[in-house]
Amino acid sequence: MQTSRWGVPTTPVHSQPPAHRVLRGKQAKNTGTDGTPCLAPGQHYRASRSVQAVLLSGGQVIRSGRKCHWAIFQSTGAASRIKRCASMRVQLPALVLASEVVFLALYAAFVTYDGDADAAQQNNHTEPMENSVYKDYPFFADVQVMIFVGFGCLLAFMRLYGFGGIALNFLTATFAIQWAILVQGYFQFCSDGKIQLRVINLLSAEFACAVVLISFGAVLGKTSPVQLLLMTLLEVPVFAVTEWAVLKYLKINDAGGSILIHLFACYFGLGVTFVLYRRSLNEGHSKETTSYQSDILSAMGTLFLWVFWPSFNSAMTLKGDDQHRAILHTFIALSSSTLTAFALSAVFSKNGKLTMADIQNVTLAGGVTVGASVDMMISPAAAYALGVIGCTACMLGYRYLTPFLARRCRIQDQCGIHNLHGLTGLISCVAGICAILLADEVTYGPSLYQTFAHRAPVEGDPRLLELQHLIPGLQPGLGRSAREQALYQVAAIFATIGAAVVGGIVTGLVLKLPFLAAPPDELCFDDKLYFNVPADYDSTGVLSPPQGPEDSKV
Amino acid sequence: MQTSRWGVPTTPVHSQPPAHRVLRGKQAKNTGTDGTPCLAPGQHYRASRSVQAVLLSGGQVIRSGRKCHWAIFQSTGAASRIKRCASMRVQLPALVLASEVVFLALYAAFVTYDGDADAAQQNNHTEPMENSVYKDYPFFADVQVMIFVGFGCLLAFMRLYGFGGIALNFLTATFAIQWAILVQGYFQFCSDGKIQLRVINLLSAEFACAVVLISFGAVLGKTSPVQLLLMTLLEVPVFAVTEWAVLKYLKINDAGGSILIHLFACYFGLGVTFVLYRRSLNEGHSKETTSYQSDILSAMGTLFLWVFWPSFNSAMTLKGDDQHRAILHTFIALSSSTLTAFALSAVFSKNGKLTMADIQNVTLAGGVTVGASVDMMISPAAAYALGVIGCTACMLGYRYLTPFLARRCRIQDQCGIHNLHGLTGLISCVAGICAILLADEVTYGPSLYQTFAHRAPVEGDPRLLELQHLIPGLQPGLGRSAREQALYQVAAIFATIGAAVVGGIVTGLVLKLPFLAAPPDELCFDDKLYFNVPADYDSTGVLSPPQGPEDSKV
Amino acid sequence: MQTSRWGVPTTPVHSQPPAHRVLRGKQAKNTGTDGTPCLAPGQHYRASRSVQAVLLSGGQVIRSGRKCHWAIFQSTGAASRIKRCASMRVQLPALVLASEVVFLALYAAFVTYDGDADAAQQNNHTEPMENSVYKDYPFFADVQVMIFVGFGCLLAFMRLYGFGGIALNFLTATFAIQWAILVQGYFQFCSDGKIQLRVINLLSAEFACAVVLISFGAVLGKTSPVQLLLMTLLEVPVFAVTEWAVLKYLKINDAGGSILIHLFACYFGLGVTFVLYRRSLNEGHSKETTSYQSDILSAMGTLFLWVFWPSFNSAMTLKGDDQHRAILHTFIALSSSTLTAFALSAVFSKNGKLTMADIQNVTLAGGVTVGASVDMMISPAAAYALGVIGCTACMLGYRYLTPFLARRCRIQDQCGIHNLHGLTGLISCVAGICAILLADEVTYGPSLYQTFAHRAPVEGDPRLLELQHLIPGLQPGLGRSAREQALYQVAAIFATIGAAVVGGIVTGLVLKLPFLAAPPDELCFDDKLYFNVPADYDSTGVLSPPQGPEDSKV
Repeated sequence: MQTSRWGVPTTPVHSQPPAHRVLRGKQAKNTGTDGTPCLAPGQHYRASRSVQAVLLSGGQVIRSGRKCHWAIFQSTGAASRIKRCASMRVQLPALVLASEVVFLALYAAFVTYDGDADAAQQNNHTEPMENSVYKDYPFFADVQVMIFVGFGCLLAFMRLYGFGGIALNFLTATFAIQWAILVQGYFQFCSDGKIQLRVINLLSAEFACAVVLISFGAVLGKTSPVQLLLMTLLEVPVFAVTEWAVLKYLKINDAGGSILIHLFACYFGLGVTFVLYRRSLNEGHSKETTSYQSDILSAMGTLFLWVFWPSFNSAMTLKGDDQHRAILHTFIALSSSTLTAFALSAVFSKNGKLTMADIQNVTLAGGVTVGASVDMMISPAAAYALGVIGCTACMLGYRYLTPFLARRCRIQDQCGIHNLHGLTGLISCVAGICAILLADEVTYGPSLYQTFAHRAPVEGDPRLLELQHLIPGLQPGLGRSAREQALYQVAAIFATIGAAVVGGIVTGLVLKLPFLAAPPDELCFDDKLYFNVPADYDSTGVLSPPQGPEDSKV
Repeated sequence: MQTSRWGVPTTPVHSQPPAHRVLRGKQAKNTGTDGTPCLAPGQHYRASRSVQAVLLSGGQVIRSGRKCHWAIFQSTGAASRIKRCASMRVQLPALVLASEVVFLALYAAFVTYDGDADAAQQNNHTEPMENSVYKDYPFFADVQVMIFVGFGCLLAFMRLYGFGGIALNFLTATFAIQWAILVQGYFQFCSDGKIQLRVINLLSAEFACAVVLISFGAVLGKTSPVQLLLMTLLEVPVFAVTEWAVLKYLKINDAGGSILIHLFACYFGLGVTFVLYRRSLNEGHSKETTSYQSDILSAMGTLFLWVFWPSFNSAMTLKGDDQHRAILHTFIALSSSTLTAFALSAVFSKNGKLTMADIQNVTLAGGVTVGASVDMMISPAAAYALGVIGCTACMLGYRYLTPFLARRCRIQDQCGIHNLHGLTGLISCVAGICAILLADEVTYGPSLYQTFAHRAPVEGDPRLLELQHLIPGLQPGLGRSAREQALYQVAAIFATIGAAVVGGIVTGLVLKLPFLAAPPDELCFDDKLYFNVPADYDSTGVLSPPQGPEDSKV
Repeated sequence: MQTSRWGVPTTPVHSQPPAHRVLRGKQAKNTGTDGTPCLAPGQHYRASRSVQAVLLSGGQVIRSGRKCHWAIFQSTGAASRIKRCASMRVQLPALVLASEVVFLALYAAFVTYDGDADAAQQNNHTEPMENSVYKDYPFFADVQVMIFVGFGCLLAFMRLYGFGGIALNFLTATFAIQWAILVQGYFQFCSDGKIQLRVINLLSAEFACAVVLISFGAVLGKTSPVQLLLMTLLEVPVFAVTEWAVLKYLKINDAGGSILIHLFACYFGLGVTFVLYRRSLNEGHSKETTSYQSDILSAMGTLFLWVFWPSFNSAMTLKGDDQHRAILHTFIALSSSTLTAFALSAVFSKNGKLTMADIQNVTLAGGVTVGASVDMMISPAAAYALGVIGCTACMLGYRYLTPFLARRCRIQDQCGIHNLHGLTGLISCVAGICAILLADEVTYGPSLYQTFAHRAPVEGDPRLLELQHLIPGLQPGLGRSAREQALYQVAAIFATIGAAVVGGIVTGLVLKLPFLAAPPDELCFDDKLYFNVPADYDSTGVLSPPQGPEDSKV
């Protein structure tokens, strides 16, 4: 009977389900706050036929959002069941199927095979095992596990939102990847007016997808599937343009994606959640809790992310020693950040015990923090230190910054992405800049001009020929100094954050459109709004107070 | 007290467990339907000593199958516990250990190492990193995860059949692989009278194992472990012979196994379940439900299958661009099929909500649908379209065809394998045939004769020498035209389905042998029949009516 | 109300939480056994201020360990909540952070990049794709999944110790790896006074980590996180020294780590648990049970271990045919051991049903049993037989030896590591010795001197030149005969077991230090001691008697 707190109608005087209550007349506009039943029985209402049907069988109407979109419930004795969720029956299929038609048309018109996947381009010099698929696919498969299993389980940490976490992650991810293949393809993989498809495009699209899923973390449980898809539809192009512009014009080093993935995703998500602010959630939500099983499931998600994070951070580096270092650094940073997370979790807990939320989230901070310098010669000790620093910042963020942002800045960051991706991303950027400033030929040898490609001498510089003698195939660069490169990194940070914030706020405004049917406050973090749930889905709450004998009399 | 619906004896008048009730006399033959207690207290029965012991302590006898095989239960107050399950104590160990002795003898007599795994065949030209293990093992490992984790979790979707799903999948899979190594080895990997073992044999055996596990889906929860092993014992050779005959004599293109794996497995499974028809299950079964946790677990299984399906579909293709395309197509088809599944799930649900069963099953339809043409130059858009079409067919099948088959055709397809593997497999075959008819040298270049090996010119044809100049190492083929190849594909489809149906029906008849102890109807989908279950295994039902205070007085 | 069995105070006469009960006077030393409340209300006690605060609000003091370390509980009506857990608030963070400082200093001082990860050592002959990272990383990633997901889930098999299993495994593993990188680095990967870091070091450290996690299995649920870390701190160096000494001086063949990993880990763990003996646990513990969900979770862990075990056993072999054989043998042995486990589980179960604990543990026996001879030409049939034999020994161990050890030898082996790693390890050693004695040039060809490197002729022997003609790059060996090699294997077994037992006993004595706050007997296997648990964590017990209507009146 968690629904009893919605108001009177669900628990009428005689504890019987209301039956055959007909509502006539005009709608009472803007009375009551979100989530409260704004139509008491007998209130005047010009109801549509389907709404009337519900009301006739003992239903209830809950206000959701400013523009009076209604979610309609039917109370049957002890438990209210939701009868109808307008956004799902029509909008979700409509949006998905329309997108699919558009995607299919675009795939047909513009997507073709890359040379490595095109039978016609194989000849008698082609060595099948040299195909790029064998270099990229192992990393792609690892990132797949992270995106679908890792993120999916991690986001399923709430007691009543397990389906939402795992299934909406699945939906959002597949939608994002299909869309990103097209948008990134247009900007990055186009040749002769066609998008050349190979596994690297999929890998790149999965990074775009990771961006969306991180942003998703900020609004988890507070958005309808339609809103999520719309957010994806808008975020992917903003991200792809930002990525393309930063890589093409600013030309930065960001192997682990600290700037382009983590900072962008974080500030975009914060922008969205800022606009979608719900005051009532600041006082805590009865369903915003975990269960024993959901905590374990979420920890499994963390473990999959943890295990494959070295692949994530190294997937886009140069092959050879660069990729080797990226793997080593990520692993070391994750390890030290995990240890620190356990220690700080005990320190910051009221009773000195470990908190699973910390183990699920803060342990991963090292992977982000080492991102921007992951392929550089920063030394294993620096990777270790970055893990500790990132983890500490992340933990402090969870304890102090997230509540502050929610209360004072109207930023309700559901999964604390600002701690795990924002703060750590910023530290990572600073570390990356330091590593760039310290990079010299003593440490790197001539490989310096491969890892920092933009510092290679320009075309025609005699130094270039000299270097090409040492490293065959070295591409001419821009002849940037370390300091210049560092300044470009700074520019990229600000540009990315700016684009993300603006994009996020605009997206948030779009998501407020009334027909997208955001969940009412009381049905946030609740699977039953969007899923057919089994009978026992709420049984983990049997021990909570409302189940006591006194409560059942209410 | 779910067992109360079995009949009177479990809830006798005075709500006390019946004690010391001796049954004498003759057995009442063929009265009552399956699963109902056919021995009311006091009824005449010439009971064996062990049965009498149970009855003496307050037990109950449940009819199972035509030939009066009895499962015996002991009711102790509120809950009935099963005292004895004849098939497990004797038959399961006997069958397993006998098989192991036979397998061991066959391994000892016939299995040896392939050249790549044989120390004695390494010489000074051997390059260790060129060993075939490095080409096959990554794909093998991915398929392993699919078979053991993916299938295992997916099949554990029922509330009270989680152990059955995950553990019987484990048992069946290991049994199938060991057996398939021998049987496939005899037909495909034999040389000098010995089976040459390397990783590709294991991979091939895992495909045979996938066949068995798909068929298993049709009879999930309705078969004893002994029946499952017997089914495996019969299905593997039928499959191996069919596979060998089709590949050797019809010589078809079927990289993703749409014909040989999915169609065969589906129609074999339907044949078995047709024979094992249980009328009472058509009216629904109280245990045929999911719980919140089992739904999440099953969705995790889906995600593992989803993530590694590109490896599954591409494991057996030619290396290089063929494998590259197979990965791309599978990923694209899965993505579009996932999106479609979410949309259609909302459309077909009564209240516009998402159904987890759809997300667990229908999302995977694209992987099957793209199978037969997965390595061909069908274009990414066609892969996308195939995903959408396959998913739609699969969804319609779940909604309309499965209930129809169960009611009208006596085909109770527990997991709906006909939708996920049959319908999609047929579509895949049609798509494959179209792709074959459209294939020409313009699109494929000379690689055409690699992908479609049987269209390569015959030995001695001057065109062959010409092509071998372009593609060194091209094997002579059969000189088939596209249309001829298409006709062979059609022949293969019918041959495979025919072999599968006959094999399935015969297997089903064997599985009806009385001493295999199929579960009685009321204990279908129930772990407690074959597993020692923890005290809480049924606790997810705490919210169901029988747990109320009135009930506890019984 | 599981806590009611602790004694009187939790269920006082009037069933009301005791309030404002002040305890004065001296501590009653050494009365009562572990876990019983040794301070009845009113008993004299010179309580610290924080303890008084607890007692004032109705708490209770539980004796733990000889030196009167107290865990303090507060009873509030039906459920007792733990108020304070001294070890976690101070010791855990202190130990972790101190370790991190030391580790960081050591990393900074001694750890540098190996040539394959060092940018400065790349030159114009370097082929990026030849980098060792591509040979090692796939196996490393597989082992990562085993360590973090596989072990984590497997150890989470207890109803109330899921967090403990998954999270303490995570903590212990990361701690062990960081420490092992340093210690193993010092002994094995040092050059020019620096530890040369590459992926192989991480892989090697994960093997050391596996050793710690196996030992952890012996004391699971009975040790505090601080004790676990201390155990890790001591076990890793003892292991690293043993490993180094055995490999350097005895020079054995042990590709799958049967001697160095499994035997060492097992006997170290038994040594620790021997010292930490708790008599009261021999009579069974109310929380030492599984739940339906925890059993499934644990089975998933088993499946991940099962699936990637071939990578584990083959990760350290020679590349090429040796690694190929290791994969084949491990897979075959695991398969046959799984089948056997199902059969024996039904045989040994009281009612002929399958037991999940067997499926979770005994199925894996084959992977250990085949370890010592995994890369040798033992024939597939021998691998099959080893799986069956190892599984049988393991199963018999679980049924008869583990209870015997607990009752008669004061060895409480929580997860039965002696069965899964000890017995099977010994069988594996015997098999390995047989394989060594049987190895000859007929079977292996000249590769004999690669697989058994110590049998290669010594430097200067003309036979060496002859062999180097057949196998370019063959290293000179020690010219050992098969029998000599076998004797060294025997010596290694005894040396390893000896070092493990002594190390384990000493470690156990250290872990008995009072300030490490071992859990009191009654809070063994209980997450609430070290974790903030969600409200429902104990809800799987809702069907137990205390939840009945009478109880709710209390």
